[in-house]
Amino acid sequence: MLVEVKIPENIGFVARVMKNFGFKNLCLYKCNVNEKSYITASHAKDVLNGATILEDNEEFSEFLSKHNLIVGTTGVSGKDEKYLRKPTFKPYEIKISNKTAILFGREDFGLLNEELEKCHVIATIPTSEEYPVMNISHAVAIILYELSKELNEKNDKDLATSKDIEVLLKNIEDMLRATWYPKHRIRKTIVTFRRVFGRAMITKREVLALNSVFRKTKKYIDKLRHNTNKKI
Amino acid sequence: MLVEVKIPENIGFVARVMKNFGFKNLCLYKCNVNEKSYITASHAKDVLNGATILEDNEEFSEFLSKHNLIVGTTGVSGKDEKYLRKPTFKPYEIKISNKTAILFGREDFGLLNEELEKCHVIATIPTSEEYPVMNISHAVAIILYELSKELNEKNDKDLATSKDIEVLLKNIEDMLRATWYPKHRIRKTIVTFRRVFGRAMITKREVLALNSVFRKTKKYIDKLRHNTNKKI
Repeated sequence: MLVEVKIPENIGFVARVMKNFGFKNLCLYKCNVNEKSYITASHAKDVLNGATILEDNEEFSEFLSKHNLIVGTTGVSGKDEKYLRKPTFKPYEIKISNKTAILFGREDFGLLNEELEKCHVIATIPTSEEYPVMNISHAVAIILYELSKELNEKNDKDLATSKDIEVLLKNIEDMLRATWYPKHRIRKTIVTFRRVFGRAMITKREVLALNSVFRKTKKYIDKLRHNTNKKI
Repeated sequence: MLVEVKIPENIGFVARVMKNFGFKNLCLYKCNVNEKSYITASHAKDVLNGATILEDNEEFSEFLSKHNLIVGTTGVSGKDEKYLRKPTFKPYEIKISNKTAILFGREDFGLLNEELEKCHVIATIPTSEEYPVMNISHAVAIILYELSKELNEKNDKDLATSKDIEVLLKNIEDMLRATWYPKHRIRKTIVTFRRVFGRAMITKREVLALNSVFRKTKKYIDKLRHNTNKKI
């Protein structure tokens, strides 16, 4: 939910990042939405069109009462009324359900004390002390990115197992043993390769490609040697 | 680094989120920066003023060679040239040092294949399938938010530069060309090695060790060939 956001472009940008992360229930409380919002919303005009518009305090309270968790966001902590802002949670510490409302306040003053009072959780984005004031749509982007993260935690990279890596290392070793590479350095060299491949989180596909490099080179060396021997 | 970003407001927003997260080295390659960028930059005009401006391909390559890790960002994966985009890392899986360059491409086409080829790591933000196209400044916000979270002042004096890695890749290529390794696969194989070494954040010492592997193997092959020829 956006509270008294004055710059129409910001509202459109928020709609866009919402759609980017698969969120669609936008609520605008006393916001200045107009045709400029539709430009920055780009392909998320449907999110703007579907937004719940609230115009007075009563509607606002009623809307919140339908949710089971209300998260308030703040930028720099205010000097007084600290109790309203503590404890503060980082974006990745928030857990939500589909009955959670997340409140983002005015560009200049954020959420007012009476609004923060209604919140169950206060969240803030850790920023540089030198310039902590974020544009509201960037703050929304980061919070929604964190919230959507849990939904797609699956690892789709198909990482090589350590067994795959050992096969690759064996191929490298076989190649080295076929050359004049100093025998006493082979072990150390293999350790170097093992470290590099491990830190790279090498994938199965990459292991296959590299296996072929070392096998083909070894085969070529064997062939050359064979020819040399034949000609003696 | 922004590559051919056309909308001036986006460049200003990027400068602002950079300052929000304590980053200041902005590099603009063929970007359309103007007075509108200064408006959206808000209090981050210093970041815009301090930006490195690159105008041609030569300057671009030279700039990259001074970094030791080059991270390319992509939105939706292209249908072809998959090998340039795999494996893809999530923002929180990237590790950087202060010699890392992060490339963000054009609003419409992202990074071109020849730019992706130069990258050691490919990163993408997991988004909704329905509308995965993010505004560039929101993508930058999320990446920098993640990086600032884990940015530990690690000593990167020992890390290989991208120039060191290129020398190593040249040695690998020279070895491959001396064998029967299929010529049409060499380019792809070199990209695989570049990615693996880059993600591993390979050190100068490791590069030296591996250089020796490929140089010695190549030398041995040359010697064998020479002998074969002599004996004919």
